[in-house]
Amino acid sequence: MDWEKILERLNSFVDANKYNELRGALMIMNVVDIAGFLSTLESDKMLKVFRILPKDISSDVFTYMDDEQRQNLMEKIGDKEIGELVSDMFVDDAVDFLEELPAGLVKRVLANVDEEQRKVINRFLRYPDYSAGSIMTIEFCDFHEGTTVLEAMKELKRTGVDKETIYTLYVIDDKRKLLGTVPLRRLILADDNAPIESLMNANFICAETMDDQEHVVELVRKYDLNSIPVVDKEGRLVGIITSDDVMDVLEEEATEDIEKMNALLPSEEEYIRTGVFKLAKNRLPWLMFMMISGIFTGLIIVYFEKILTDLPSIGVALTACIPMLMGTGGNCGSQASTLAIRGLAVGELEPKDVLQVLWKEFRVATIVSVALAAINMLIQLFVFKRGLTVALTVSAAMIFTVLLSKSIGCTLPMLAKKLKLDPALMAAPLITTIVDACSLLILFAFAAVII
Amino acid sequence: MDWEKILERLNSFVDANKYNELRGALMIMNVVDIAGFLSTLESDKMLKVFRILPKDISSDVFTYMDDEQRQNLMEKIGDKEIGELVSDMFVDDAVDFLEELPAGLVKRVLANVDEEQRKVINRFLRYPDYSAGSIMTIEFCDFHEGTTVLEAMKELKRTGVDKETIYTLYVIDDKRKLLGTVPLRRLILADDNAPIESLMNANFICAETMDDQEHVVELVRKYDLNSIPVVDKEGRLVGIITSDDVMDVLEEEATEDIEKMNALLPSEEEYIRTGVFKLAKNRLPWLMFMMISGIFTGLIIVYFEKILTDLPSIGVALTACIPMLMGTGGNCGSQASTLAIRGLAVGELEPKDVLQVLWKEFRVATIVSVALAAINMLIQLFVFKRGLTVALTVSAAMIFTVLLSKSIGCTLPMLAKKLKLDPALMAAPLITTIVDACSLLILFAFAAVII
Repeated sequence: MDWEKILERLNSFVDANKYNELRGALMIMNVVDIAGFLSTLESDKMLKVFRILPKDISSDVFTYMDDEQRQNLMEKIGDKEIGELVSDMFVDDAVDFLEELPAGLVKRVLANVDEEQRKVINRFLRYPDYSAGSIMTIEFCDFHEGTTVLEAMKELKRTGVDKETIYTLYVIDDKRKLLGTVPLRRLILADDNAPIESLMNANFICAETMDDQEHVVELVRKYDLNSIPVVDKEGRLVGIITSDDVMDVLEEEATEDIEKMNALLPSEEEYIRTGVFKLAKNRLPWLMFMMISGIFTGLIIVYFEKILTDLPSIGVALTACIPMLMGTGGNCGSQASTLAIRGLAVGELEPKDVLQVLWKEFRVATIVSVALAAINMLIQLFVFKRGLTVALTVSAAMIFTVLLSKSIGCTLPMLAKKLKLDPALMAAPLITTIVDACSLLILFAFAAVII
Repeated sequence: MDWEKILERLNSFVDANKYNELRGALMIMNVVDIAGFLSTLESDKMLKVFRILPKDISSDVFTYMDDEQRQNLMEKIGDKEIGELVSDMFVDDAVDFLEELPAGLVKRVLANVDEEQRKVINRFLRYPDYSAGSIMTIEFCDFHEGTTVLEAMKELKRTGVDKETIYTLYVIDDKRKLLGTVPLRRLILADDNAPIESLMNANFICAETMDDQEHVVELVRKYDLNSIPVVDKEGRLVGIITSDDVMDVLEEEATEDIEKMNALLPSEEEYIRTGVFKLAKNRLPWLMFMMISGIFTGLIIVYFEKILTDLPSIGVALTACIPMLMGTGGNCGSQASTLAIRGLAVGELEPKDVLQVLWKEFRVATIVSVALAAINMLIQLFVFKRGLTVALTVSAAMIFTVLLSKSIGCTLPMLAKKLKLDPALMAAPLITTIVDACSLLILFAFAAVII
């Protein structure tokens, strides 16, 4: 049945106060879709429907509600009820949720969370943003060395229901140091009396709590993992990160790069929910910087135009080429910097490859610039009927602008990485600003030489 | 032990021809790292080392080698040996590998693949690129309804080793129609005699073979899935897609968007391995289009400059502002279009939100433009000592340019989506080209009115 029809039927239950039927329908639905359904209801109805959900479902649904819905709900139900919801959430989801709340509210909610969960949450809230610790969860299955396969299976059956994943098991020693990982599939296939450490992979991949989340993503991507254990400095197992959280980070990092590459300060909030002033604040710094650079670029025109006023017809012809030349230079630079930035981001390029990349860009630029200059030459000569000198000047300037902008475009991101800056900052806006000035200087230099 | 030391030790084994020791060391290593080690060896040694790997490991290592390495290897070993490797690979990896090869070679390799695997591969090679069918695998565990838990566990122990994932099981009817999914955890916790369909989730999420891979990623992301079943038009189970492949697509799609947003035709090849002519070919179309647009933008300057020649001092002052105004307009438009494109890509925005977004951008643009115009006014008056008329003209043009470019920037991507075009094409390069012309027209219009 399609989503529209399902919604219609659910709404008919709500309108007729058929809450038993509604509960029945909701209990066969996916929690993500239940959250989606709740978001279509006005807040009184939403509260009523939320309350008829069984406890174990309601905390999952709460996890998938968006910030606005949750805020709506929190205004209606008491701190105690929220505390109970948070007690039932996976630690990583609970931490994500609490990090969005004002500090005062966090305290009130936490006061109603059961003690054990509260302790863990408090510890997790102290991990810095973007660290492995801040995105991990503690719902994993660990076993001490010496446990047999049969004992492990029994323990799994007893406690596995509440774990975020039971598909990788962790073997630890007395001090909780991680010794190895055991895929559940290997446990299932093994002899009942085998000790669990005989099945384990002692050469496992793991992250440290303070590792950057980008590094975690790299490891998971490189080794095609479903989940990755997180250890502290002493090698003790403190959490795991599952693939759904890795995908969140992957998408978040791509968004952040795209924003930085387009003169925006990155923001984690959804666009629609971000205030107008906050949006303006994220945009102004780069705009201001580039506007001021642009003013100085303008001075170059003024300076040279004074020289060119002796030859007014040539002056006008050259001025007419400025937007085209600056635009082409900017686009060429942006192409080269994009490939370098993305190559660095996905680990395909490293700063040491700079000469190889530069040589490649130089050859690409030669082909591209000659093609562009040829077409431009034809347009100047036959469409605009300019003289040969002007056409030659513009075409020569074009070739050098493309060569230069491709070189700058590919070099700056790699240099930035080398200097431990973010390569994504060396994208179109900055490159364009630099190339604008360069292209003007090149144009006028050629004008001076040829004319 | 760190990677450098491991490499050193492995190399010492190779140099001393200690192949037993080497095999021992390799057999405790991750296949990704073995592939990494092989890539450091020259081709004769690489071949020797590859040949000492046990069969089951060598096909996994082959999966993780890069194209160049594989080509290298394929030149040395016969079609028969390659055929054997491909027979042992997961179908999705084998298909990925074969898709990169020239057609003649594919035939030769396939002739040596065992018949069953060959049939499947041939079917998979027919799915269109970027479809769910093209990235799925057939190594999943399915059970007919009526199977008991005990029988299912026995079957799993017998066949599970060769499956890409056993953590979600699929229940099918006599016609292979997918009835539901059973998480392995639920099977483990269940009573031995329960029929498997009593454990299943009948309200499962699935993809169709011809669905776009982007849609698959959306489903997996939305419902936090570890794997997703793929059915044909009749609802019959034909494959599954696992989270590692979803992450590949996620990264691929982000790269594609970033490339499109920067005037590049998207390419799947690694930058370093792409030939210079291919790179030039991917860049020229947009550059050519934008160069020609730029030429026409230049005509606007020429047209109005003729009018302004009566007032040479004002003419020069205005010309000096052109790079700044065009640059600022371009950057503002690119900021707005980036947020719209990304919002559409991650499913946060939909074309129907266009008025809401436009209203938001209008308010942001008001704040931003007033701030920029004020600073600009101060610079014109006090740094460059221009007259009030020029300063007013430029500042007024600035405000309108920002308002217009933000509006165009946010509207075009949403319009593109509505028209089923790719919003990523409506990014900085195109927006900048449009805004360049608009900002000039605005500047000269104000000049005409105020002066």
